[in-house]
Amino acid sequence: MELRLQSPLDMHLHLRDKDMLRTVAPLSAKSFAAALVMPNLVPPVTSKEMVLSYKRRIQEAVGQEKFEPYMTLFFRSEYDYAFLSEVKEDILAIKLYPAGITTNSEDGVDNFSIEALAPTLEAMSELGIPLCVHGETNGFVMDREAEFIPIYERLAKRFPQLKIIMEHITTKEAVDALVRYENLYATITLHHLYITLDDVAGGLLRPHLFCKPIAKRPEDRMALRKVAFMAHPKVMFGSDSAPHPRDKKEAPGCAAGVFSAPVALAALAQLFEEAGVLENLQKFVSDNAQNIYGITPPKKEVKLVKEPFRVPPSYGDVVPMFAGETLEWRIEGVF
Amino acid sequence: MELRLQSPLDMHLHLRDKDMLRTVAPLSAKSFAAALVMPNLVPPVTSKEMVLSYKRRIQEAVGQEKFEPYMTLFFRSEYDYAFLSEVKEDILAIKLYPAGITTNSEDGVDNFSIEALAPTLEAMSELGIPLCVHGETNGFVMDREAEFIPIYERLAKRFPQLKIIMEHITTKEAVDALVRYENLYATITLHHLYITLDDVAGGLLRPHLFCKPIAKRPEDRMALRKVAFMAHPKVMFGSDSAPHPRDKKEAPGCAAGVFSAPVALAALAQLFEEAGVLENLQKFVSDNAQNIYGITPPKKEVKLVKEPFRVPPSYGDVVPMFAGETLEWRIEGVF
Repeated sequence: MELRLQSPLDMHLHLRDKDMLRTVAPLSAKSFAAALVMPNLVPPVTSKEMVLSYKRRIQEAVGQEKFEPYMTLFFRSEYDYAFLSEVKEDILAIKLYPAGITTNSEDGVDNFSIEALAPTLEAMSELGIPLCVHGETNGFVMDREAEFIPIYERLAKRFPQLKIIMEHITTKEAVDALVRYENLYATITLHHLYITLDDVAGGLLRPHLFCKPIAKRPEDRMALRKVAFMAHPKVMFGSDSAPHPRDKKEAPGCAAGVFSAPVALAALAQLFEEAGVLENLQKFVSDNAQNIYGITPPKKEVKLVKEPFRVPPSYGDVVPMFAGETLEWRIEGVF
Repeated sequence: MELRLQSPLDMHLHLRDKDMLRTVAPLSAKSFAAALVMPNLVPPVTSKEMVLSYKRRIQEAVGQEKFEPYMTLFFRSEYDYAFLSEVKEDILAIKLYPAGITTNSEDGVDNFSIEALAPTLEAMSELGIPLCVHGETNGFVMDREAEFIPIYERLAKRFPQLKIIMEHITTKEAVDALVRYENLYATITLHHLYITLDDVAGGLLRPHLFCKPIAKRPEDRMALRKVAFMAHPKVMFGSDSAPHPRDKKEAPGCAAGVFSAPVALAALAQLFEEAGVLENLQKFVSDNAQNIYGITPPKKEVKLVKEPFRVPPSYGDVVPMFAGETLEWRIEGVF
């Protein structure tokens, strides 16, 4: 059995910088035609120069492979219309982090008074720049996303022309909100389609599956699977693949993040085939994102075959999801 | 400020065996007059000979310190009246584990058809041997204890003379059940009074706080605190202190268990003082257990003073709760 995916897209990707960038960027470029690259470097990506420089470093790390890094800015309420007009051609979206919520987000937004954000969001709305949001409060870890839903709703109502992407949604509540507001969209990760908190902490503790937002309840996973498997037009694949060196994951104070980019397409094919919806994977990993963002990614065909894929124990010093396990699909070639 | 505790008791303690036993037993003996020692060794403690031999090994490990190890048997539905009559004088309780639920419980009970357990439980009831239960199902990790409550209720109704101790309760549901049935009692750990899932996985992942039952929600902790702080006569302190070598905790596949025995009394004094209920600690750490179990522990006065206690980074190769932190109380002497 084989599957040909046209221009698969990863609409939420962490590539980091320097050595880590050089390790992981080629792995994403092997599977995907393009990816939306998160701006939470240290310091965060907040200027046209930083965007262009980071894009260049990504392209250098990728090398000859055909791969488009769609760039993002780290949201700041200081961005004005003039600044945004100038940077618009170089970015695809702006990413908003509530302060301190996840890796390298200390510098994020801590004021969800809409009026404080309004000038920037109005400018983005006028300029057609989508807003990507890490939607979690500082509440109890299992409730953070659900508690953030009212903020999504206020943003969606107040800025009806602004495309708002609820990033890496993990809950039934987020799925429900998605369909209530025309201008809300969502990315869903591989790992949140696969795991629940049980996989992280139900048996022995598995740090390589520890991520933010944390994996939730079985009924939440079911809600995510439902919209992903039907390739609901408002959802798209975003891996949130987040590499950390092994020694940062396998120690007390383990950092949050699952490194899934190199196994994502094979694992998605397996999951969608098991669900009997393999024909919907093309939309979930590419067409929906093209429609939502209005993009035409580089042409790239990825051919997967249903043959065992033994996932390496690590890529460099980064341990991938499914390390050492065997997936049922593998990438045979990229054309 | 000082606090004198008379014969403090730890009514749920893992002492392990061999080197680990020799590391941790003296630490419990320094703080406590006696402890109920769990039987989940490999193989589990299931005969009079094993009980007596384990007790001897504990006493050797403790040395000269005054300390009574109250012994338990690992529940088996094969135990009959004759066997139980013979072993009764050597044990204080029998501990029931659902199969595979926690460390070394693979050998536990997997059939909660009450009738399958009835002959043994009837014999225990007649002989006045309390039943200690690790009450979790195999369900979703946050629901396991709440899902087990109906089993507690069936047991409590069917065997009204049997004292049933809900071990290391973690939920509001368990607290509610406790007061509904006359013959249900509970132990509460130090760590479940202190932490929620947020402390384990809300920020960076903290394997040394990873335990089973997993720490729950803020409202659950509040329910536990309520009954502990009032020294509700049906609850007693049981640390569930569970030592694992550092390399088993600080690696993928981290084992469940918090090592709290050497810091328990100081941390409890701090918590009870902060809550303004220091005068209730005596009941929570000793008197209630004496009444519930009908025991008279060795006389031992532990004097605590409100002075900084810098918790060591480790005891042997076991990392304690609050490692490297400073508690507000310390044990000044034992008389």
